[in-house]
Amino acid sequence: MKAVLLAAGEGRRLRPNFNRPKPLVPLLGIPLITRNILTLRKHGIKEIVVIIGCYGQEIKAHLGTGEKLGVKIRYIHNPDWRLGNGMSAYAFRKDYRPGEKFILMMADHIFQPNILQSFIAAAKKVKENEILLAADRQLETVHDLDECTKIKAEQEYARQLGKNLPHFNAVDCGLFVGTSALLNSLSNAIALKQYALTDAVNMLAKSRQVRLHFVKGCWVDVDDQASYKHCEKLLLQSLVPPKDGFISRVLNRKLSLRITKLLAPTGIKPNQITLCSFLLTLAAAAFFAGGYPLCGGLLAQLSSIVDGVDGEIARAKFLSSNYGGLLDGILDRYGDFLLIMGMTYGWYSVTTGGVALLVGAAALIGAPMSMLFKEKFHALMGKPYIPETHDGLCRYLPANRDGRLFIIMLGGILNLVPAALVLLAVITHLQTAFRLCYARHLM
Amino acid sequence: MKAVLLAAGEGRRLRPNFNRPKPLVPLLGIPLITRNILTLRKHGIKEIVVIIGCYGQEIKAHLGTGEKLGVKIRYIHNPDWRLGNGMSAYAFRKDYRPGEKFILMMADHIFQPNILQSFIAAAKKVKENEILLAADRQLETVHDLDECTKIKAEQEYARQLGKNLPHFNAVDCGLFVGTSALLNSLSNAIALKQYALTDAVNMLAKSRQVRLHFVKGCWVDVDDQASYKHCEKLLLQSLVPPKDGFISRVLNRKLSLRITKLLAPTGIKPNQITLCSFLLTLAAAAFFAGGYPLCGGLLAQLSSIVDGVDGEIARAKFLSSNYGGLLDGILDRYGDFLLIMGMTYGWYSVTTGGVALLVGAAALIGAPMSMLFKEKFHALMGKPYIPETHDGLCRYLPANRDGRLFIIMLGGILNLVPAALVLLAVITHLQTAFRLCYARHLM
Repeated sequence: MKAVLLAAGEGRRLRPNFNRPKPLVPLLGIPLITRNILTLRKHGIKEIVVIIGCYGQEIKAHLGTGEKLGVKIRYIHNPDWRLGNGMSAYAFRKDYRPGEKFILMMADHIFQPNILQSFIAAAKKVKENEILLAADRQLETVHDLDECTKIKAEQEYARQLGKNLPHFNAVDCGLFVGTSALLNSLSNAIALKQYALTDAVNMLAKSRQVRLHFVKGCWVDVDDQASYKHCEKLLLQSLVPPKDGFISRVLNRKLSLRITKLLAPTGIKPNQITLCSFLLTLAAAAFFAGGYPLCGGLLAQLSSIVDGVDGEIARAKFLSSNYGGLLDGILDRYGDFLLIMGMTYGWYSVTTGGVALLVGAAALIGAPMSMLFKEKFHALMGKPYIPETHDGLCRYLPANRDGRLFIIMLGGILNLVPAALVLLAVITHLQTAFRLCYARHLM
Repeated sequence: MKAVLLAAGEGRRLRPNFNRPKPLVPLLGIPLITRNILTLRKHGIKEIVVIIGCYGQEIKAHLGTGEKLGVKIRYIHNPDWRLGNGMSAYAFRKDYRPGEKFILMMADHIFQPNILQSFIAAAKKVKENEILLAADRQLETVHDLDECTKIKAEQEYARQLGKNLPHFNAVDCGLFVGTSALLNSLSNAIALKQYALTDAVNMLAKSRQVRLHFVKGCWVDVDDQASYKHCEKLLLQSLVPPKDGFISRVLNRKLSLRITKLLAPTGIKPNQITLCSFLLTLAAAAFFAGGYPLCGGLLAQLSSIVDGVDGEIARAKFLSSNYGGLLDGILDRYGDFLLIMGMTYGWYSVTTGGVALLVGAAALIGAPMSMLFKEKFHALMGKPYIPETHDGLCRYLPANRDGRLFIIMLGGILNLVPAALVLLAVITHLQTAFRLCYARHLM
């Protein structure tokens, strides 16, 4: 299936804030239109048609053939873009093959990835004489409702569309599955000098040809500075993975998302951030070993925060890789080991007691247990182990990495390194024992 | 699809060695017929029809309704079992539904599991007017060729079958996909007083209705003491997993398979063996710590051998479980840790030097790295990491568990514990570094 992106308009309202055409405005380091193309590719759509008009040359120069993005892009120029976006959609007829279905979307509407995924899945069932329209009926969460095209929906069908409908129960998300029915309706509307896409859709709605797909999740028509900010916020929130622990959710992510927002526009790579987090852990270990637990603790917590940034940047910029996940997992373990060795040395060098060594060793062997358990479970069961859902009561133990590094920070700033090591040793082994008991019922 | 098992005969040749009907003769702790039923269940076949004759009551009493085995068993009694096995196969007509295909097999023919798997997969393509027959054309590996039914095959079809064919290029494995064509042919053969299954198959072969499925792997018709021993040997060999390291293949498995052969007939559970291996490691660690490296080393190697037995018993007796795999993985890590701590303590208590501690810590943190890497890879890629194929040149490093425990044994019996610890520390981290470099190309 092809996707047709409408990128012909002038985008006047966002222009003053960014000195470039709206589809090329970057959001977390990726231009709006590129983000849509990469999301489509992720869900299997690799043939893209871009309808250009006002800033056609700039867009063409930026995207090229699509080779770099892993897709094939063709351009259709719509000289009549000023008349309305129906003219742009209708320009696709030159490329249309009879019987074909296509995704039609605005270049500047940004969706949470799962929305596009389920919409594309729903496209298969669309009939030749219908179109499918993504609609949002969670009106209270719709951004800038005034500016939206409203829909009067009856069950699964739209009966009427318009910006100023007196009664409506959903809004148009600007995402369609088009068929020959849409192109025919566009042709009829244009003959009547009705040049907006909504005009043609409205004609189909009257004859019950507009099926609705109700979206679950957020989307934004990036139209002005406010909607841009809103979209950025939503995207950042979507970068937090479900497997996060408690400390991560309530503390680390608040800060790591800010760092991600700062770093996304730069060219820094996720693996470079992974390495950076490891070096911070190394420095923390050195401070602990050298007798500066305060610095050690603070650096350890900072490394924990930065440890979230690599994954966030990877997801935000479509740079996720299995190798990145592996490297992160292995370097985290080395970081843990060095930190605990640094803390143990710091304690031992003051007391030279065997207790420090024993506790240090117990904490050392407890450190990789959480990952060992989770990865083995994942490998055996083919699905990830999610502490929040699988851990039962033991999910309150701060024995995952976010919790462990938080304990290390507390040990450092309160100058209670021995207590922190004892706590680490106890909770990591306790967690493993608990999990071994629970897992019997899970597997 | 149903499976029909022929278990009506007397099995005279094996009777003197075992005081029970042949289908109930145990092989690695599981009766022949039960092994076939459990293999069928593993490959999705849960409706079993057993044709009984000579020892019908004993077989029925042993297998019951099949509930304990997770299948449904129905029995059909063939009073004319003495006439020939064609009568037994024909007895299934009482249960046959028109158009149905069924697996027909001898209760006492044992196949490597992958043979049954691919045969069942091939069954889907069998046409109504044909039957499918498993045939072996690797004549040099066929056990007791004299006793086999020979096949003259032309491409994918059998032209003639018989025990004394002058020219043949394959042998009959006694495994069929039956259709109405088979039952009709049996009816015709019986009318002519030809009571062997081969007689009916031969009639079909003449009219090019016997398609052949050439098996890849070993199988045995368990008929006498020699074939029983041969089958036991093949089954034991099939228990060795492909991910085994070098030491495991050339040393540990030779001994663990003997232990498995001894223990399989008992009621001992795989998880009990896992625990036993862990306790051996614990004892080894105590001996190292107490200054008895010779005993420590020997016990460590023994635990390494026993560590293979749990998986072998699990596979041999259809007791494999994900939980067993998880428990084994986690207890192995604790075993490793305790062994290294014991060795380090043994060294440190003699020298009280910081070097012992540092080397011990380095060995300690290297120990879980191999598993961490492999399980993370498996979880990310959805396929196991197999050192022998994925490790490149680094596969010669004895850094997997079999190699590490072998080094520990050498360190113990040569009284070179410090050298063993240094070696462990070096090779485990070297392996991790190598793998991180290689994995870039694998992922």
